[in-house]
Amino acid sequence: MSSLPAQPSPLRTISAHAALDRDGQLEPWSFELRDLRPGDVAYDVLYAGICHTDLHMVGPWGRHFPMVPGHEIVGRVTEVGSAVTGFAPGDVVAVGTMVDSCRECAPCVAGMESYCEQGPTTTYDGLDRVDGSVTRGGFARSGICDERFAHHVPDGLDLAGAAPLLCAGITCYSPLRHWKVGPGTRVGVVGIGGLGHLGLKLARALGAEVTAFTSSPEKVDGALALGAHDVVLTRDEEQLAAKANTYDFILDTVSTTHPLTPIMSTLKLDGTLCSLGIPDHFDVAPMSLAMARRSIASSGSGGTRETAEMLAFCAEHGITADVEVVKPEEINEAMARLAANDVAYRFVIDMRAGD
Amino acid sequence: MSSLPAQPSPLRTISAHAALDRDGQLEPWSFELRDLRPGDVAYDVLYAGICHTDLHMVGPWGRHFPMVPGHEIVGRVTEVGSAVTGFAPGDVVAVGTMVDSCRECAPCVAGMESYCEQGPTTTYDGLDRVDGSVTRGGFARSGICDERFAHHVPDGLDLAGAAPLLCAGITCYSPLRHWKVGPGTRVGVVGIGGLGHLGLKLARALGAEVTAFTSSPEKVDGALALGAHDVVLTRDEEQLAAKANTYDFILDTVSTTHPLTPIMSTLKLDGTLCSLGIPDHFDVAPMSLAMARRSIASSGSGGTRETAEMLAFCAEHGITADVEVVKPEEINEAMARLAANDVAYRFVIDMRAGD
Repeated sequence: MSSLPAQPSPLRTISAHAALDRDGQLEPWSFELRDLRPGDVAYDVLYAGICHTDLHMVGPWGRHFPMVPGHEIVGRVTEVGSAVTGFAPGDVVAVGTMVDSCRECAPCVAGMESYCEQGPTTTYDGLDRVDGSVTRGGFARSGICDERFAHHVPDGLDLAGAAPLLCAGITCYSPLRHWKVGPGTRVGVVGIGGLGHLGLKLARALGAEVTAFTSSPEKVDGALALGAHDVVLTRDEEQLAAKANTYDFILDTVSTTHPLTPIMSTLKLDGTLCSLGIPDHFDVAPMSLAMARRSIASSGSGGTRETAEMLAFCAEHGITADVEVVKPEEINEAMARLAANDVAYRFVIDMRAGD
Repeated sequence: MSSLPAQPSPLRTISAHAALDRDGQLEPWSFELRDLRPGDVAYDVLYAGICHTDLHMVGPWGRHFPMVPGHEIVGRVTEVGSAVTGFAPGDVVAVGTMVDSCRECAPCVAGMESYCEQGPTTTYDGLDRVDGSVTRGGFARSGICDERFAHHVPDGLDLAGAAPLLCAGITCYSPLRHWKVGPGTRVGVVGIGGLGHLGLKLARALGAEVTAFTSSPEKVDGALALGAHDVVLTRDEEQLAAKANTYDFILDTVSTTHPLTPIMSTLKLDGTLCSLGIPDHFDVAPMSLAMARRSIASSGSGGTRETAEMLAFCAEHGITADVEVVKPEEINEAMARLAANDVAYRFVIDMRAGD
C-alpha cells in the first residue's frame, strides 16, 4: 500500500502509413507505441521493404484495420528494456515477419518459431500475446519487439538492400538449406521477382548449379546477371523437355496459380518443388508426381536461428536485394507497381526520407 | 546357307478376357503368346487381382484395344528360356505392374524400374521393347515375361491373397519404406479399400502407430480389425482438429479428388502426405503446406528389388490381402462392384475355376 505508484512510460505517438480499411490506399496515420517491456527493443525504422504479402494483407487476408504493413525492417535501436542483453541504443536492428511465438512447442524450442504450433505473432495485423493489442509493421517511424525476434545486421551489408532479406531472403534461404542445396545439386528458381532474384543469388552462393525459370523473355538477361547458369522459358515446351529429370530441387516463387505439370517433369526422381508464393491452388497433374516420386512442398519464412544464419551467410557472400528505394509518400505508387510486377526487384521505403 | 532353318516355337493361343473397345464389357477373347526368349518365364495364371487401375485402363487411360487387363498375377511356371537361372517349371511365380524397362538409367540400375526414365513396359497395354507387340495382362490362362520382372512367392503365403501384393501391396509398401515408417512414427492411412487395407497391415507390421482415416462410419470396425490403433472420420471436424500436428506421414489411397486441407493439418512439421490414387487433381490449400513445411507427394508402385523385399516382409508377418475370389465369368460383375466400392477388400479372379 505504501509502494510508489507505477511510473508508466509516456505513450509515444508514432507516425505511420496505414490502410484504413480493406482495399484502401495507404494513408498517413498514427498509433501509440506500447510501453517498453523488460525484454523489448524499441527502434526507429530506417528502411522497410514492400513484400508481395503486403498486397494480400491490405486486401483479402487482412483482419484488423487500420493496418500498418511492413515486415522487412531495418532500424536503429533507441531504447532497450531492463532485461535486454543483446542490443544497445544505437545498434542497427532488423525485424522480419514475426515478433513473438509460444516459445514452448517443439518448433519454437528449435528456433523455428515461424512454425510455432500456436502460430507466431505476426509483425503486423497480429495480436500481441501479452495485451492483445494489434501489432504494427514497419511502414512507421518507430517499432518495438522482444529481442528474441530482433536481429543484428552484420557490418558491411547495405542497409536498404538488407531489409528484404528479413522476409524475401529468409523465405528463400530456409527451404534451400532444408532441401540441402549446395555443391553438386541442380536447382531451378521459378519466377524472377522479389523472392526469386534472391533465390538465384542464394542458390548460386550455396554452390548449386542454378537454372532460372521465367515466362518473360525480357527477364533472361537479368536472371543471368543475378547468377543463374542458364534460363528456361516456361512457355517453351522444347526448353522444358530438354530439362526432363534434371533438378534435385525447384524453388517456385510465383504468387499466382500457374501450370506446374511441365515444371514438375524437370525434377529428378525424388525431387521437390517448394512453392513459396501461396497461389490459390496448385495446377498440377498428380500423375506428374507419381511418375518420379516427386513432391510439392511449401514453407513459411524461417525461424530466428536460421535468420541469424542467413544474415551471416549474406554478409559473407555480399548478398543483398536489388532494391528501388522510395519515399514514404510514394508507397501507394510503389504498391501499385509491385502489383503490376514493375520492379527490379524489390521496393524499399526510406522511412527517414524528407526528414 | 547350310545352317538348319530356325525352329520356331509353335504359337500358343491363350484364352483370356479382354475389353474389345473402350468402356466395353470384358469378353472372352484369345491371343497368341509370343515365342519364348532366352530370358523368359512362361506361366499359367492361377490368380489375378482386380485393381482400381484396371477400371481406368478399360476406360479413359487405355490405348490399345482389345485389352487384356490384370497386373496382380500369381501363376505356375510352365516353361523357361535357355538363359533363365532363377525359375524352373512348376515354380510359383508372381508378376506385377511391369514386365520390362530400359535397364540402363539410374533408377533401373538401382532396381527401381517403376521409375525408369524411359518408362517401364507395363504388364498390359504396353508395347514390348523387342517386337513392339502389345503386352497382355493376367486376365488370361497364361502369360510370359522376362525373369527379371518375375518374383518368387515365399512359402506360406495364400496364393489368392498374395496376388494383390504385386500392385496394391508394393504400392503401399514402397512409400512406407521410403518415408521411413517404423517404430516411433505416427502414420495415417486414408481410404480403407484395396490399397488402404494393405497400407494399414503393412504400417502396423512395420511398427508404426497407425490411424485409419475414412469418410465411412461403417468402415471403422473393419479398420480396427485390420490393425489400425484408432480411426478418424474425415467428415468430423472435431476428430480432425484433435489430431492437428500429429502424423509424420500419411498414405492417401483415395482415387477420387477429396478435400486434403483438413487432412494436411494433421501432419507434423515436415510431414508428407503421399497420394497413391492419382485423383484428377489435389484439392488442397497451399497455405496448409506452408504453415508446417508439409509436402504432398505421390509414388508409383515399386521396383523389382523392393518387390522382392516386400514379399519376404509379408511372408515374415503373415500379410496377404483380404480377398473375395471370383470366377472368370464373374469379372464384369466384380468390376462393377469395384467401381461402386463394394468389396472387402480386393477381388481376385481364380483363373482355373471351372476347369
